[in-house]
Parts: sequence; C-alpha cells; structure tokens
Amino acid sequence: MRIMPAAEFKLDREVDYGTADQNEAVQAIIESVRKEGDAAVHRYSEKFDGVKVPELRISEEEIRSAYERVDLEFLEAIREAAVNIRSFHEKQKRSSWMDLQPDGSLLGQVIRPLKRVGLYVPGGKAAYPSSVLMNAIPAQVAGVQEIAMVTPPATAGEEGVNPYILVAAAEVGIREIYRVGGAQAVAALAFGTESIPAVDKIVGPGNIYVALAKRSVYGVVDIDSIAGPSEIVVLADDSADPAFVAADLLSQAEHDEMASAVLVTPSEELARKVQAEVIRQLDILPRKSIAGPSIRDYGAILTVGSLKEGIAVVNRLAPEHLELMIESPMETLPYIENAGAIFLGPYSSEPVGDYWAGPNHVLPTNGTARFSSPLNVDDFIKKSSVIYYSREALLKNGRKIITLAEHEGLEAHARAIRVRLDKEDETNG
Amino acid sequence: MRIMPAAEFKLDREVDYGTADQNEAVQAIIESVRKEGDAAVHRYSEKFDGVKVPELRISEEEIRSAYERVDLEFLEAIREAAVNIRSFHEKQKRSSWMDLQPDGSLLGQVIRPLKRVGLYVPGGKAAYPSSVLMNAIPAQVAGVQEIAMVTPPATAGEEGVNPYILVAAAEVGIREIYRVGGAQAVAALAFGTESIPAVDKIVGPGNIYVALAKRSVYGVVDIDSIAGPSEIVVLADDSADPAFVAADLLSQAEHDEMASAVLVTPSEELARKVQAEVIRQLDILPRKSIAGPSIRDYGAILTVGSLKEGIAVVNRLAPEHLELMIESPMETLPYIENAGAIFLGPYSSEPVGDYWAGPNHVLPTNGTARFSSPLNVDDFIKKSSVIYYSREALLKNGRKIITLAEHEGLEAHARAIRVRLDKEDETNG
Repeated sequence: MRIMPAAEFKLDREVDYGTADQNEAVQAIIESVRKEGDAAVHRYSEKFDGVKVPELRISEEEIRSAYERVDLEFLEAIREAAVNIRSFHEKQKRSSWMDLQPDGSLLGQVIRPLKRVGLYVPGGKAAYPSSVLMNAIPAQVAGVQEIAMVTPPATAGEEGVNPYILVAAAEVGIREIYRVGGAQAVAALAFGTESIPAVDKIVGPGNIYVALAKRSVYGVVDIDSIAGPSEIVVLADDSADPAFVAADLLSQAEHDEMASAVLVTPSEELARKVQAEVIRQLDILPRKSIAGPSIRDYGAILTVGSLKEGIAVVNRLAPEHLELMIESPMETLPYIENAGAIFLGPYSSEPVGDYWAGPNHVLPTNGTARFSSPLNVDDFIKKSSVIYYSREALLKNGRKIITLAEHEGLEAHARAIRVRLDKEDETNG
Repeated sequence: MRIMPAAEFKLDREVDYGTADQNEAVQAIIESVRKEGDAAVHRYSEKFDGVKVPELRISEEEIRSAYERVDLEFLEAIREAAVNIRSFHEKQKRSSWMDLQPDGSLLGQVIRPLKRVGLYVPGGKAAYPSSVLMNAIPAQVAGVQEIAMVTPPATAGEEGVNPYILVAAAEVGIREIYRVGGAQAVAALAFGTESIPAVDKIVGPGNIYVALAKRSVYGVVDIDSIAGPSEIVVLADDSADPAFVAADLLSQAEHDEMASAVLVTPSEELARKVQAEVIRQLDILPRKSIAGPSIRDYGAILTVGSLKEGIAVVNRLAPEHLELMIESPMETLPYIENAGAIFLGPYSSEPVGDYWAGPNHVLPTNGTARFSSPLNVDDFIKKSSVIYYSREALLKNGRKIITLAEHEGLEAHARAIRVRLDKEDETNG
C-alpha cells in the first residue's frame, strides 16, 4: 500500500457501460420478454442458468424448508438487524402537508408510497441477506404495499435458492419471490409477464447484465442508482489504532478487486504503522486474492500537512464510506461536505453500518456523494402538488397570470384565465 | 377531438432517444469540450449558433440594459410570482436530525445543499422566464450557493440574449450567466472549462441535443429528469363549465404538437359541449397550427360509466397535470394516486400553477407520475448517514455483527469487529 502525498492521488475508475455485445444481448432479452412474457423468461433461464424452472414463483413450502437450513444464531441476528434498520428509516418518513391561504385558496404537497416495487437479489456467492433488508425495509417504511423479489434459480449442484436469502425475505414479510435472474428478471419486472405483474421501480444490485437492463428500462419504471465499485476513506490522526484502521481498510478491499481503500492522515508515524498492519493482516485473509489487488491498484495512504487539509481531500474524494478516527470526530463532522455514510470514532467500524446500526448500506459510490444520497424512504415515495384556487384568489391574481402568459407568447394559457374573468364580468354585468 | 370510451384509449408517445447521428454528434461535442475547454465551446457556438462570442460571461452592463427593455407590468408580475414560488418551496425544507441512544451511540442523517448547480435555459422562441424561476428557486431554498446559468447566444438579427430571461435571472439573484447553448453548454457545466467552473447538477429544459448531452454526463454530475411531451387530464362532471374545460385543454395543446389533452367525464352532455367548445376556441387561437395537431393526434374525450371509473382512468394515465372540475374535488383527492400536479375546482386553471400559485411547473411527464415527483427542494440536497457507535454499543452488538458478516463469507468484515473486541479482552485480561 503506497504512502504518497495526497495531491498526487487521483481515483480513476471508469463506470462500466458494458461492451457493445453485452448491450446488444441485453436489448434482445428485454425485447423478447416484453413481447413473449413468461415463455421468453423460461427460455433465458434455461440458456443462462442452465436449468428448467417448472414454476417461477417460490412456494411457501420452499420458504419453510429454508428456515430449517439456517442456524438460530443467524436468524436472531437478522431479526435484530431488521429492527434497527426499520427504526432508523422510520425517522425519514414525511407527511403530506397543506397551506391554507387567507383568500380561501389551498396549496399542498401530497406524499404517497409507490404502489409496487421489484427487488433484485443476486444469487450464488454474491447472495447477501443483509442486502434484502437494506432494500426492502425503506420501501416498507415508505408504505409500499407490494414488493416482488427476483433472484436467480439454483444452478446444478445447488439445493434450491440460497436459504439465507429466502429467510431474510420472509423475515421482512416478502412472500412474492420469483426464481429468475439476469436481464430477463429486470425486463419481467418492468413490463410484466403472465406470472410476474409489472412494478413501478426496480432496486437492488446485480452484475453487468442486470445493470444494463436497469439502465435500459429506466423511464418505463424508476430504478435506484447503479452502484459502481465501492470505497472507504479513513481520516485518522495519532489517536487512531493502526490495527483498527488496517482492518477497516481491508474490510472494504475484500468486496471487489476494484474497491478502493484509502487512509488520509497528517501523521507520518500512523501512515507507516498502518502500512505494516495492512501487509500483516492481508496475508492471513481468506479473500486475499480479492483484497490484495484492490489494495495494490486502488488503495493508498495519503499524507497531508494538517487535519484541515485532510478534510479537503475527503471532500474532493466524496467517498461512499468515511471513517473519522480522530481525536474529536464530532467536532469535525460539520466540515464534511461529501460522503455517503460517516462513521465516527474508534468503535464505528464500517461493518457496524453494513449490517447493524440502522442506516442503509446502499450508498453513493465513485464520487457521486457530491450529489447523491444513501438509499432512503424518499426513494419509495412520490409527491403531487395540490392547487385549489378560490374565486377570490383568481379574481385578484388573474390579470398578472395573463401578463406572464402573454410575455411567453402562450395565448391559450392567457385565454384559460381570461375565459373565467370574462364570465365573472358577464355575471356581474 | 374524438369522443370515445375510456377503455379504448391508450396514450402512446415514445420517448425520443435521438437518432444515431444525433447521439454521435453529441458524443463528439462532449469529448471535445472535455479535452479542449473554452476553445471547443467557442468553436461549436460559431458552428451551431452562427456567431462569434467574444466573452462567454454576460456582463452586468448587459443585464442592466435588459431591464430597460422589459415593461413594468412584466417586472411586477415576475416579482410577485417569485415570492409565491419561494414561499411554497420553503415548506419543503428539511433539517438534519440525530437520534441519541441509551448505550451512548448516536445515529443521524445530515442534509446539505448541493454546492453548485447549472441551469440550462433555452433561447429563441422557447425562452420562458417562468422556467428560470421554477428551476432556480428550489435550488436556492435548498441552500445552493452557486447557480450558473447558460443560455444560447443571440443569433444574427437578435439584439442580445432575451431580456426577459436575463431579468428573470437577475430578479432571483443569478448573476453568473454564460452565453452558450446546446450540448457544448451541458459539457462545459459537467466537466468545467477555463471560463465555466464545473457544477454538481444540471437542470432545465432543452432540445434533443441538450437532452442527449444531459443523459450522457449523468454520473459525472446529477441531472433532473428529462421531460417528455407534456399532458393534461381533466376529470369533469356536469357541474363543469364547458368553456373552462375547453380552454384548459387548449392551453396544454398549444405547447407542442405531441402534447396531450384529455377530458374524462361520466357526462355525455359535457362531452359533446366540450367537443364543440374546443372546435370553436381552437379556431381563433394564434398557435392553432400547434394546438390543432396536438388535439387531433393526442387529444380525446373519454366517457366513463361513473366518477369512480373516471378516477381509475386518471390513475392509469398518471398525468403530468390533472384538473378536477367536479362537484366535490377535495373529497376526491384521496383517491388520486398518480398525478404530477392536481388542480381542484373551477378556478384552478392549469396556468395558475404554470406561473403563479407557487408549486413547481417542472412535473413528471409521460406517465412517470407513477414514480416521479415535481421538481422540489429535495432535488438540490444530498443526505449523509452518521454513525457514532460507543464502546458499550460495540461490546453489546459486536458478536452479532460478526455472525452476519461470516454468513456472507466476508471474513475481513468480521475481523474489523473482532480486532476491537480482542483489544478489549486484552485490556481487561
């Protein structure tokens, strides 16, 4: 892990928009599913997952049997995590409001949940039960009544869909689960098929085909932001424990070879100690073959002249995860402009947020924290403006509205007001 | 304007993703501006707008002289509209919050404005001063400190940039205005040039080149949703005045040949009367050549068996604008699930909302009100999650976090917690 001056570091990871072949393949899948429905879904499942799926929907029986295959320790932990996540997201809820005016008018904003949401959950090794909770709970708190989950069918040698995924879904009350993955699952959710009714929004992570399919159906349905490679920045001073810092950097690095783990510090001593700890801890990691390249290619220890300079570096990087392992983290918080989730102090290790504390682990990646937010309840609501104008209000303001319409050359707009004012004149005349 | 049963009507307007040539042209412009900065901007302005622009930034002098070219009636109206719009959007503001836990932990959500926003304002005939207000004010209310406006340079024969646009901008305090339009303006805002510093988000309407450029830079910066053709649905019963209904339908139709104006009514009599009124009023409209094709191709009068059925039709269409010209509009509001802006009663004509009342006129088009919202203050903020975990909290919960990490095969995540628990054991042992 290189130690270098912060000014020399630039994180350059291009977003993957897929190859031309991948884009074409996804387009073809979407068109087929749109036209042929279930028949196309079955065909692609057989082609890509190598299995014939007799029934798309996962039965109650299969969910029950999943419970028999997970241990109690997991079940208890996921239940408590769900309580924490729900409790945090409840605080994000908002109410419709209205504003009554003295002229008898009423203006307002109505907040409603989306009606139906689709949740994509990857299968295989990237099957993360925590991801089910993090995507489903904000939707439920928003008031979404229907959540349809899709996840790839078990491939040969597997004993059905990952039971941890099924139990996590069942624990948050999701019972509508379909055995379908890839671009065909996204297309089915967007356009609907005989078995899978269409949704209003699709959320959840997936491979490049899933990402391209989501991009493509955006507009027909809403989608969440498409996650890029993940990152952590740790801002630490001499008060930090090098072993803690190194462990947290590695916990990010094990996700993905393109993940980025960066330490920013004004302490030369800490820089050297963390460097040594990363080498030591990396060596004994099971996912060393992933974390190693990540640390080598996208990891860095950046030295800065002062904490203030470190904060400027953090704001420039706009990291997905930021840890403040410094003497006075709370006092520094107001200066952090760009970060998805901010972890303060020595005990707030990133996994506390990934699994447990309550805030969402779906966060803006690749510098988009400059303008994007963690997944939250607002992502599952829609607003409508409400305008009730009284007769008095229109009589008072009508002429001025006409003035503005006429200055934009929109005469029919002006006339829509004028026809009402004229009618009043007639009635009074 | 056809009268037809609602069940037979389907609004089918494809979103314009541009031709291959248009996409290629936009890509080339973006790449050039990204690499060459101002030089490319000037080159494209000369090529597409046919003018040499000596200075990109519009001077204070030019803004002052714009004031001399607008009438007082307009100035007074735009000032009052700005007050109304600001007042409505102030109610959308939200605060950061934190949640203190008995175990000494603190969880929270920080809300911050975006730092810098770019506002695209079309030139020529589609220059709408109201659009400046509607896009800029929510950003200002959110707390955005820097708004950079771009608008195409005046072409030969024009006396500088449209003065109404400049005055509208100056009235809301925008002084950073650049004379540049098209894809080159979008690219300059996204990547920055010597003269135009980069922004975090680009908002505002534009032609197909502007729309494609915005789509393309999304990810580098945030963008607002890309507006499709506009629409109104009027749900009316026998209590409605046919002349009012027809005028409101036509005010939508004059926007664009692809705009859609639809009446939904359980009253056969109203249907016939509105049909006659539309023909009568259309005939004397200055923008008849636009409103005519819109009414012919995308307009309809839909008859329904009951008000309840009419509401179902409305929710299916998910219109950008919805007018309820029925006996008891407020009592019907709770049943409206999908609509961008809802206008209640005989005096709430759509132009009241387009210009005046306060709610935003940038609304979800083309059925996206199912999952999208009017432009609002939330579009100009970002959230960060805050997690401060106390020693006590980590000791209490650490084992359960490790359980979840291990069940996902993420050993480095587990170790980041374990290294802290072990340290405590050592210290106590």
